[in-house]
Amino acid sequence: MSRNTKPSKKLSPPGRGTLQRAPTTRQDQKSLTLGELARRLGGKVVGNKGISIRGVMTIDEAQAGDITFIANEKYSKKLATTRASAVIVSPALSGQQSGGQGPKPALLVTENPYLAFARAVDLFKPEEVHPKGIHPTATICPTARLGQEVSIYPRVFVGDRTRLGDRAVIMPNVYVGEDCQIGEDTILYPNVVIYPGTVIGKRVRIHSNTVIGSSGFGFAPEEEGYFSIHQVGNTILEDEVEIGANTTIQRGALGATRIGRGTKIGSQVQIAHNVEIGENTLLIGQVGIAGSAKIGSRVILAGGVGVVGHVTVGDDVKVGARSGVTNDLPSGGTYLGYPAEPIKKMRRTQVAMHRLPAMMELLRSLKKKVAELEKRLDLE
Amino acid sequence: MSRNTKPSKKLSPPGRGTLQRAPTTRQDQKSLTLGELARRLGGKVVGNKGISIRGVMTIDEAQAGDITFIANEKYSKKLATTRASAVIVSPALSGQQSGGQGPKPALLVTENPYLAFARAVDLFKPEEVHPKGIHPTATICPTARLGQEVSIYPRVFVGDRTRLGDRAVIMPNVYVGEDCQIGEDTILYPNVVIYPGTVIGKRVRIHSNTVIGSSGFGFAPEEEGYFSIHQVGNTILEDEVEIGANTTIQRGALGATRIGRGTKIGSQVQIAHNVEIGENTLLIGQVGIAGSAKIGSRVILAGGVGVVGHVTVGDDVKVGARSGVTNDLPSGGTYLGYPAEPIKKMRRTQVAMHRLPAMMELLRSLKKKVAELEKRLDLE
Amino acid sequence: MSRNTKPSKKLSPPGRGTLQRAPTTRQDQKSLTLGELARRLGGKVVGNKGISIRGVMTIDEAQAGDITFIANEKYSKKLATTRASAVIVSPALSGQQSGGQGPKPALLVTENPYLAFARAVDLFKPEEVHPKGIHPTATICPTARLGQEVSIYPRVFVGDRTRLGDRAVIMPNVYVGEDCQIGEDTILYPNVVIYPGTVIGKRVRIHSNTVIGSSGFGFAPEEEGYFSIHQVGNTILEDEVEIGANTTIQRGALGATRIGRGTKIGSQVQIAHNVEIGENTLLIGQVGIAGSAKIGSRVILAGGVGVVGHVTVGDDVKVGARSGVTNDLPSGGTYLGYPAEPIKKMRRTQVAMHRLPAMMELLRSLKKKVAELEKRLDLE
Repeated sequence: MSRNTKPSKKLSPPGRGTLQRAPTTRQDQKSLTLGELARRLGGKVVGNKGISIRGVMTIDEAQAGDITFIANEKYSKKLATTRASAVIVSPALSGQQSGGQGPKPALLVTENPYLAFARAVDLFKPEEVHPKGIHPTATICPTARLGQEVSIYPRVFVGDRTRLGDRAVIMPNVYVGEDCQIGEDTILYPNVVIYPGTVIGKRVRIHSNTVIGSSGFGFAPEEEGYFSIHQVGNTILEDEVEIGANTTIQRGALGATRIGRGTKIGSQVQIAHNVEIGENTLLIGQVGIAGSAKIGSRVILAGGVGVVGHVTVGDDVKVGARSGVTNDLPSGGTYLGYPAEPIKKMRRTQVAMHRLPAMMELLRSLKKKVAELEKRLDLE
Repeated sequence: MSRNTKPSKKLSPPGRGTLQRAPTTRQDQKSLTLGELARRLGGKVVGNKGISIRGVMTIDEAQAGDITFIANEKYSKKLATTRASAVIVSPALSGQQSGGQGPKPALLVTENPYLAFARAVDLFKPEEVHPKGIHPTATICPTARLGQEVSIYPRVFVGDRTRLGDRAVIMPNVYVGEDCQIGEDTILYPNVVIYPGTVIGKRVRIHSNTVIGSSGFGFAPEEEGYFSIHQVGNTILEDEVEIGANTTIQRGALGATRIGRGTKIGSQVQIAHNVEIGENTLLIGQVGIAGSAKIGSRVILAGGVGVVGHVTVGDDVKVGARSGVTNDLPSGGTYLGYPAEPIKKMRRTQVAMHRLPAMMELLRSLKKKVAELEKRLDLE
Repeated sequence: MSRNTKPSKKLSPPGRGTLQRAPTTRQDQKSLTLGELARRLGGKVVGNKGISIRGVMTIDEAQAGDITFIANEKYSKKLATTRASAVIVSPALSGQQSGGQGPKPALLVTENPYLAFARAVDLFKPEEVHPKGIHPTATICPTARLGQEVSIYPRVFVGDRTRLGDRAVIMPNVYVGEDCQIGEDTILYPNVVIYPGTVIGKRVRIHSNTVIGSSGFGFAPEEEGYFSIHQVGNTILEDEVEIGANTTIQRGALGATRIGRGTKIGSQVQIAHNVEIGENTLLIGQVGIAGSAKIGSRVILAGGVGVVGHVTVGDDVKVGARSGVTNDLPSGGTYLGYPAEPIKKMRRTQVAMHRLPAMMELLRSLKKKVAELEKRLDLE
């Protein structure tokens, strides 16, 4: 290989510092009393407030010292068998402990057990520690501007005129093209690629091998073959967007592709040029959205849903797994199937479909009977 | 780039030289008169040929100085409201300006407004500038051969016996295995991986995180488990192929996987071993093609279409979004559904499906009536 | 890091040296007699055992000196036209040569021609040679532990406390986070990303741009927007798992996502948090499995199959391409469609669906006839 692979001996210029450690996790054993935990998560304790909680686990795997949760009443029987020291439950389940030999696990009663569980995980999680500075093998172009306390890992590329906000974390082998903005406290995981001109807000997380701002699929037919339409727009991700691994979001052809604040996008998702997505929308894994579609706020598209180009999906719409949205959907409904229809209608259609062979039988027998009736009447 | 990010004072000598600058875009404000633009794009001006055009924008976002386009007559009303200085239209729309208070925007009349728009974008686009040379952190194996004026960015890997054509651009973190050929003027975007033995033509573009030539899914069942069939074929991409981000094209098991000249492939696409695709075919995002399928020329497979292994899809076939092709399709038709059927038939089936619950009702009522009729006749 | 990127003197005992060459393939022309080949693959020769075989090719492309195979009797006619010197066939086809002018190609007769072919490819394949050692541009964190004779290519990152087994091959730009285990003889292809805490067995192969252990899609609704559930579980891949390119396997939310021994996973696959997959299961390209689903052993999910969260798919189940599994499936059946149904039932439904328009016609005509019959009876 070439001799050029030796790391540079010259350090980063003064003021910037040099990132010299790897990311790590602080694995301190944390411990909280159940009473303290209830205070932090919001909720009431039924049982011994003084017991010590050291972690969060599923109801089947929890051991003494763990807290677990029941988000769905159908799992309430597991209260009797779990080895957890405490269980987060809804008020509806808080009475279950009164009968019998008295509560084995203590209860932490709250209106939203799933949210309380999520917060408990957060309290006990190992802390990710990103050392500050710029690794000497990173390529920072001369007119890039970096905020305070950024973490730039080995072999990162940051293009000209790009600005990184304070405490941004850019992990190994990430490429950030020129003229980008990356907000404060945003994390880009290893091997993410950000094309030129992309604007990314604060507290955004983008997982490995996801590509933001690549060229969309724009080709104008000409006499022989296709003329590639140069995609001159860009991509805008607002604050608190989170994106899974191996997902693609394409830049606008003209104008922007835009993902609204708080929207969460899964893995293996494909979002085409000039798509606009509202706030706090969920796109689960393998969703595909074609060019210029508009998706509202608080929408949920389940795994593998496809949306054709140029349609509008209203706010608060839910679409079931693997459905295909081929027309505008007004706000607020729940849809299923391909083409996507209101879920009740589609469920009836699905039921009817599976009775089709029986229907055909019946139809044939009726045809025969009617023919016989006609014959008898003609004979008379 | 620590040292290397400073603009190079030394020029790149012919041959290998040292790439010392990042890619950048030249953002010069361009300007053309409408007359000159009409001459370059082909078309006739209705209105003032002398007005100055400085950019291209969508009809809703265009401002004074911009040219825009109407490719579809249903948007013709927007001619009255756009703030664009000029609009590219078809001859059918060129009369629309005669009535009323006279034309507000000038018109550029052409038979193919979409293609003229695409060419206009190209004329005004910021120019991508790739400095020539080889960055010192690139790994160029000793027997690789590089053409004239190539751009090899930081941390690229080029394997033994691989040949790069003149002016090829290999962006950061790209891996090109041994025994590959990359044609002239081809661009590989950051983090692309090209497996050994791949042959890539001229003017090909491959977007980030796409993988060309990985092993296909070949496993022969043995007594316990599977024996992995070593994939010894390769992948051939002909001239002017363009491929989106996060797409996978697998090498042949024996022989080649082949993508014909001018074919365009979207993002998140999966093409299995020994697939053969003709020329100027379009595969839109999330398409999946199983092993040894043959797809003709000028085919269009819309988003999410799946094709099973070993089938043949004829030239000029179109398949609607999310369809599943399970049998050979003769040339020239338009298909939809799973299994894919001629679109008219499938549309009728879809309509009928949604009437199924009503059909079941009707069938039940007929059954009852027929039974009554039979009873009455028997009684008589 | 900078200091740590030098091959550690402590970790690398003499003999390991520094990886200074690229991977390469040894292209020695191999040659075996047909008799020797039959001995190694298992099987009986019909014809000349002494002929020399130098490679494996498809039946259409084979030339003199090649061996080919017929796995499916419907291709038996090709025996008459192939230019191969020998053909691997099942006993059922071994008689085909007796008539006529005598066998042109020799036959190698075996109970499992496809497996014999796979083994023949393996015998003749060019040998992949990975030089041993650690490239000086790799980043090996100080507390990582490396086995004997590993190959660590340029710009690899290996996190703290991670252990690599003997002869592991880590190709360029791969990122392996902290606290991982990688087994003996495992190969990670370029640009793979392994998140912290992942456990990978022996003889595992993971193709380029695949991501193992990224965060799953876990968000608890709160008053406004979503609270991200920190994913504190990990991912476990057992021995002999193979994974295609651009695939994503997410870490457990709590506990592990687990892929059983010998399971093979294609490209562009998405496996969500806490999924558990048995042994020797095949997931073909673009499969998607939602959170906490359990897939048995020896299952085959064809291309594009989706499985919803929390369902259980029994051992030995087969599911046809693009189906959607929405309920538990007992062991051993074959399923198709969305929702997936037993294949025979689904095929009947599909046939009936395409007769729907005709059924509607018939239904309308029956309705009319019944009305007429009723009228006539009332008149009488």
